[in-house]
This record gives sequence, C-alpha cells and structure tokens, in this order.
Amino acid sequence: MGLMDETIGAIMPVDEGLRTAVQERLDDLTKPRGSLGRLEELAMRVALIQGTTDPRVKGKRVVTFAGDHGVAAQGVSAYPQAVTPQMVHNMLSGGAAINVLTRHVNADLVVVDIGVLADFDDHPGLRREKVRPGTRDFTQEPAMTREEATAAVEVGIELAERAAREGISMLGTGEMGIANTTPAAALLAALLPAPVERCVGRGTGVDDTGLARKVDVVKLGLDKHGGAVGDPFAVLSALGGLEIAGLVGLLLGAARYRLVGVVDGFISTAAALAAMRLCPAAGDYFIFSHRSDEAGHGVFFEVTGERPVLHLDMRLGEGTGAALAMSLIEASLKLYHEMATFSSAGVSDKS
Amino acid sequence: MGLMDETIGAIMPVDEGLRTAVQERLDDLTKPRGSLGRLEELAMRVALIQGTTDPRVKGKRVVTFAGDHGVAAQGVSAYPQAVTPQMVHNMLSGGAAINVLTRHVNADLVVVDIGVLADFDDHPGLRREKVRPGTRDFTQEPAMTREEATAAVEVGIELAERAAREGISMLGTGEMGIANTTPAAALLAALLPAPVERCVGRGTGVDDTGLARKVDVVKLGLDKHGGAVGDPFAVLSALGGLEIAGLVGLLLGAARYRLVGVVDGFISTAAALAAMRLCPAAGDYFIFSHRSDEAGHGVFFEVTGERPVLHLDMRLGEGTGAALAMSLIEASLKLYHEMATFSSAGVSDKS
Repeated sequence: MGLMDETIGAIMPVDEGLRTAVQERLDDLTKPRGSLGRLEELAMRVALIQGTTDPRVKGKRVVTFAGDHGVAAQGVSAYPQAVTPQMVHNMLSGGAAINVLTRHVNADLVVVDIGVLADFDDHPGLRREKVRPGTRDFTQEPAMTREEATAAVEVGIELAERAAREGISMLGTGEMGIANTTPAAALLAALLPAPVERCVGRGTGVDDTGLARKVDVVKLGLDKHGGAVGDPFAVLSALGGLEIAGLVGLLLGAARYRLVGVVDGFISTAAALAAMRLCPAAGDYFIFSHRSDEAGHGVFFEVTGERPVLHLDMRLGEGTGAALAMSLIEASLKLYHEMATFSSAGVSDKS
Repeated sequence: MGLMDETIGAIMPVDEGLRTAVQERLDDLTKPRGSLGRLEELAMRVALIQGTTDPRVKGKRVVTFAGDHGVAAQGVSAYPQAVTPQMVHNMLSGGAAINVLTRHVNADLVVVDIGVLADFDDHPGLRREKVRPGTRDFTQEPAMTREEATAAVEVGIELAERAAREGISMLGTGEMGIANTTPAAALLAALLPAPVERCVGRGTGVDDTGLARKVDVVKLGLDKHGGAVGDPFAVLSALGGLEIAGLVGLLLGAARYRLVGVVDGFISTAAALAAMRLCPAAGDYFIFSHRSDEAGHGVFFEVTGERPVLHLDMRLGEGTGAALAMSLIEASLKLYHEMATFSSAGVSDKS
C-alpha cells in the first residue's frame, strides 16, 4: 500500500465525546455564554482536532505550492504564465503578500516548487519537489497521470509529516499557479457537484470574453473526462493541478497527524474538497479561513454547509487568508486558556 | 466655548484628493489589482485619516469605559448590576476577554470608571473619572443632564488627546455596563432612525419575555424624551449612558487628532452614530470592526451603508471586536509598505 492510501487509512474522525467538557470550560469563562461566537467554535474545533480539553498552538506554518497549468494555453488567465516562477522568486525574496502576512502572524512559510514550468536554483526558502514542469492541458488529455498525481499528493503528505515532527500545530495551505482557478473550478463542478457556470469566476481578472472562455474550457474538460466523476482521485488527476494535488496531500497529512488544516481560498478549497471526497473524516481537521471574492467559492459553502471564518473580499491565494485566520484561531485558544472563570474571578453568573 | 464644541469645530473631513496616489501604490504591489479586498480599503482609510501616502501604525490602544444604567431597574438584563464592577475588577486583574485580546494584538488597554455604581480603590490600570454613579432610569427621567453628558464626553476627548500625545495611532472603543444594550438600542432607534423592534436584541441573553420588556422600555423612553429627537446631544443625554457618552468623546477626539477610531460592536456603534450625528465629518475617521450578533446591529449597517470588517457572531463588547480588527488594519499597512512592486520584483503585470 502506498503512502497516500496508508495515510487515508490512518485518518480517524475526531472524538465528538470531548465536546461536553470543552463546552463546560467555554461556558465557565467570564462572558455571557456563546458571546465569543465563532471564536468559541474555533477553540472547540482545535480541541477536537488535538483530541484534548487542553488544546495548544505551538508552531504555525503556511506551505505554498507552486505549479503551472497546461490549460493556460487556452487563454484562461489575465496574466502570462511566466508570472508563476516570477512570483516564486518574489516569495523567496520576501516581497509577496504571503511573506508579509506570515511575518505578521508569526508563522513559517515554506515555498514548494511542485510543478513550475521553469527551473530554480537551490534556495534555503525553497523546497524543490518538482513532479513535472506543469500539467498537461486538460482540454486535450488528463492534466496528470495517476502516478504523477500520486507523487504530488505524497509530497504534501511528507511535508505534513515533517511539520508534525517539527512541532507545528497549524498548517495553512497556499498556492501560486497562473491559470489555477480553472482547474479549481473544474474540481468543484465535478466533485460538489455544481453547475460549471456557478463554479467559474474571473480569477486574477479576466474580462467577460475570458470568463465565457473559462466556462467553455471547464465544460470541455468535464465532458472529456466525464467518466472519472465517480472516482475523486481520477477527477483530481484529470482536471487538477500539481500544486492542488500537493495541497490535497498536505491536508490529508494534517488530518493524519491531527494538525489543524487551515484552508486558504478558492484553489485551496478545491483541494480540501478533493481530500474530503477521498476521505470524508479528513474534513474534521479543516478550518476554512475565508470566503474569497472569486465567484465560485460561495457554491462550496452553500453545498457543504461549511462556514468560512473571514469574509474580506480577498482573491489572492498564496495562503494569505489562511495566515490571517491562524491569528484568530490562536486568539481563540488564548481566550480559552487565559480568561478568568466565573468562580475564580468572583463574577456573578446569569440570574 | 467648551471642549466638546471646540473639538467638533476642529474636525475636518479627510482629504479625498490623496486617494489617487494611495491607489497607485496599492495597484503597483505584486498582486492582481484589488485582490487584497477589504485590506486595501483599510490601508486606504488609514492613509486618508492620517492625511499621508505613508500611513503608519505606531501604538494601539483600547479604551474600555464602564458605567451603570438606571434602566437596569426595569429588568432588561440577564445579569445582575453587580457584574459591572466585578468585570472591572476582572479587567484590572487581566482575566477578561479584552485583556487576552489586547495582549494578542499588542495593544494597550485603559479601563475607565466613568459611571459605575460602586467605588474603586486606586489601581494602575484604572482611570477614575466617575461623572456619577450610574445613570438615571430613562423611563422616568433623562438618563443624564446635559452637564453630566458633556462631562462624560469630555473625559473621552481628553483620553483621545492623551493617546495622540503618547504616540497612539489607533484607538479602539470598549465598554462594560450591565443593561447597556437597552440605551444603545434607544439611541439607534432615535438617531438612525429605525423601528424600535429592529434595534432591540437579546443582549447578554434575555428570554422572550425579557426581549418584549426591552422593546417596551425603549418605546417608553422614546415617547418620554421624543422632543429631543432633532437634537442628537439631547438624545444622547436623555437615553444614553455615561460609558456611551465617554465613547462619543473618545471617537470625536480620535477624529480631532486624526487617529483611527476602531469601533467595537453594538454599544460602540451607538456611540459612533451619536458622534456622527453631532459631527458628520467625524465618521471619516471610524472603522467599524465587526458585526455583532446582537440583533439590532445590522440595522445600522443597512441604513448607513458602513461595512464591518469582521463577522464572527461575537456579542461581548469590552472592545473585543475592535482589538481583533486592529490586527487586520495593521496587516493592511504592512502589506502596503512591505510588499514588492511589479517593477522592483521583476514580475510581469496583467497582459
């Protein structure tokens, strides 16, 4: 059995039995019950993930996978494909949004070349794990073979394993890949499932013609690889991307090692959905950091009932929303541990 | 002319002329235009407030005013009035939610007794500025005389002036006062204006009977002091609270000294509304940190078109939402300054 199947087999649903004890602690804190709203839910979620009434955050890390997409040839992005490696260099020099935000929330950043159509020299901030230089154009053939997709997933699993070993408790997902809203939309359409028109958005900013082209391209992909729909891994291989498969692995690994998987925006959500279709229990370990401004993101939340933490009209990816949410998750645990209780503080409870 | 009128007279609308230069900088950062969503708006807002294309955050401070309410005698709160001083003590010992969250975002916390129905000993964390021990019951008589309300507003202005002098750039509003969702709802109903039923909510958690009682109490207050409605300061005096008047002063002072006024939840929003009715230009200096779970909060956003930054179903007050939003505002400025530009990073712009 390979690493992916082994990992999926080792993922256990969280123990809901802990809920009562954690809720008792939350209700004993000096505040009206429930008045910390989503922050209470976040503390509860981390407690269930860690399987303890004493949930703690040690290290925080965002892993940003970069990969290119054969489907970019179909003119689905407003930016040239050269931007993928340029942005990797930008991240390695500390000038991308994700660098600023991981510094702000005191998280590590790991940048991974899992499939960029360009070569990189060694760099201390870069993990070189290229499975292949970009996917194939899914309107012509499957984006990845099953072997390539498996290899990319396993890169993610190994990074989660390493994070667990290094004392990380929260793993944020990030990505960079020109054209990757197209495969992400295709995955949502196939795996939710949902109408293609509702899953496709403007990405980095295509015009109306570009938007119509994206819809056509996704439909073409779904038609071509329609036979795969009952098989989530076949869908991921045929329509996904190398960085998306890496994220699937990272999130499966997070669930396997009971780390909090903090899911970034639209692309990361497509990866989270694939992970949940491969292993429904994995979803117990995910927190959806934000609702992106990318049009298709809302469909996911409607269909699954998941609720994003933030709604800041962001649509940048890289892990930026995940980084911001990590700070709120950390705040929720500080509240859980550091607030006084009604008895300790001599505060009267509700009459 | 007193300090309040002088302050109002000195508040100038922000210079919208700066918008173009700030937007140019935002658009040159290595990201698709607009893709940082609300974070770009926040950076823009701080730039306009500070009147510079080089906006900076130095110190951050939350000022939490505590006061009691005569209207508590009408049974409008789920908690006994003794909780106001108990929670002040809790804040002074560092065990309240606002202590945890100000520590988390690295902000100062100043707790002010502006009208608690209990005496406090000297404490380094407490400012003793009691105008009177609690307001009067507004169903019987005006909550405050104009002189009392003026004194409370001036306490707030002086605290803003001191903050400006001490290098603070962001002032968050906080409050603690059993029963204070009732005067806050009355202020919203009178000053928006809006139907009482839409402004009243469950506060710390009253049941259906309590909720109906709150609606009746607010209607009684509005009927009794209806003559005040055209005069925002008369409304504030008749229906407000000492901590609410203190917040009005703090926010007017923030506007006067070009500090970012970070407005917390429902009660603070009522204070911000009063400040905006007293001086419309003051609103340019406010950022609404979050949408509270308190039912009446949404009406404010509907009527004014203001947009809260966070929506975390919180309903605790104390300044908790303001503290969390401060971290996002700070993040927005770091992005503004620390991200690479397209030219500096050698990244290709949109094709």
